[in-house]
Amino acid sequence: MSNPTAAILIIGNEILSGRTQDVNVQFIAQRLARRGIRLEEVRVVPDIPQRIIGAVNELRAAYTMLFTTGGIGPTHDDITSACIAAAFGVPWELHGETARLMREAWGERVNAARLRMATMPRGAVPIKNAASIAPGFSLGNVHVMAGVPRIMQAMFEALEPGLPEGEAIEMRAVHGVGVFEGSIAAGLTEIQNRFPTIDLGSYPYKRGEVWGVSLVAKGTDVAALEAAIVEATDLIKSRGIEAVQGEPQSGGA
Amino acid sequence: MSNPTAAILIIGNEILSGRTQDVNVQFIAQRLARRGIRLEEVRVVPDIPQRIIGAVNELRAAYTMLFTTGGIGPTHDDITSACIAAAFGVPWELHGETARLMREAWGERVNAARLRMATMPRGAVPIKNAASIAPGFSLGNVHVMAGVPRIMQAMFEALEPGLPEGEAIEMRAVHGVGVFEGSIAAGLTEIQNRFPTIDLGSYPYKRGEVWGVSLVAKGTDVAALEAAIVEATDLIKSRGIEAVQGEPQSGGA
Repeated sequence: MSNPTAAILIIGNEILSGRTQDVNVQFIAQRLARRGIRLEEVRVVPDIPQRIIGAVNELRAAYTMLFTTGGIGPTHDDITSACIAAAFGVPWELHGETARLMREAWGERVNAARLRMATMPRGAVPIKNAASIAPGFSLGNVHVMAGVPRIMQAMFEALEPGLPEGEAIEMRAVHGVGVFEGSIAAGLTEIQNRFPTIDLGSYPYKRGEVWGVSLVAKGTDVAALEAAIVEATDLIKSRGIEAVQGEPQSGGA
Repeated sequence: MSNPTAAILIIGNEILSGRTQDVNVQFIAQRLARRGIRLEEVRVVPDIPQRIIGAVNELRAAYTMLFTTGGIGPTHDDITSACIAAAFGVPWELHGETARLMREAWGERVNAARLRMATMPRGAVPIKNAASIAPGFSLGNVHVMAGVPRIMQAMFEALEPGLPEGEAIEMRAVHGVGVFEGSIAAGLTEIQNRFPTIDLGSYPYKRGEVWGVSLVAKGTDVAALEAAIVEATDLIKSRGIEAVQGEPQSGGA
């Protein structure tokens, strides 16, 4: 497959403590899939420099691009930007244009803490965005974004037109309410074997007291996806169960 | 710190595609914190054997314990259990007692696919649970759980009494609605420096059109946490802003 690949690194004490529910992964994942970029790994690490630096260097080498979220605000626990500089072995220094834009927008409220948000690894390109004067930045194949979902989304949207593209990774799904995976597993294996270019996943879910299964076909070959879902639909119906095609439903696996 | 440590590995094509919003991390994170176990890493990898095997071996060596979620059902894409066997270099074989319990509960519906859920690495100890006849299992310091949240939670609760304990990691928080991080950053740094045994985090959030900041102190020394939050409260009030102590609010970072 020639699709570009990606990883997400969440600088995330507040995720690891359970205080905050991450919602950034799903947003980025859906947008990358639409663009034909395969998200191949997500990591959450604590706000500890050597952990961040190690993960950045491992992930930027392994994938076409790396997105980070979190840790780029003005407070003492915002250490992502300095860690990216350390990971690349470049100085962490004031970005003149960004400091100027902050002073234009914020005037006297620009203090030492806020200037941390204008301090970047040398060579970084700011990610100007609609949600915040303080930008994210890109350095090489690493895109450094805020953790607050609304700001992260604005930064991602600013980046999006410049990201590489692959064939869009499409999904088709069918849901069987009241069907058990174990009763269709053998038939599913046969369908997967007949359509080797697609990924056929089986995801049980429970809604109220009723179990069901979502069968999800993913890949770039839409004709194969649709043919596989027709067969999966017939498989569910062969168990005397109603099959509902449509948007993939959230559920867990 | 002598607290035990943990990682979570999500076998997660459906998370990486954006189809499903993970909710298991937050559940496990909160329960581990209460027990004094530090969650130090989360990884999401695709359903590819070498990716799962590599991550299992890296994470089980690095932390006191590893929890995995997903990929233990009866269908062709459920490969976690066989990968755990490969990671440990042991045979993957039918677990007699589990197969017997399945036959008692399910009778003739026990087919080859369902027997995959009774097939485990040699030496595995089933995680019997209230939600499903098909168990998870523990092998060494690796605890293998389902991905469906309700089943995962039942498995975690079955495991919980046997997990090691550390000093509980407590959180105290104060929220300033309408305060900006940049205006309190210098004061926060001073508070963090005065209380080196705690982690003081600053998390901006937006509710409706109003920005706020949650200041969250975490650690095992409750007296220090509470003293730090008193100082953080005074810091917010010094900006003419109302400070609300209480349960940490979700928000993003």
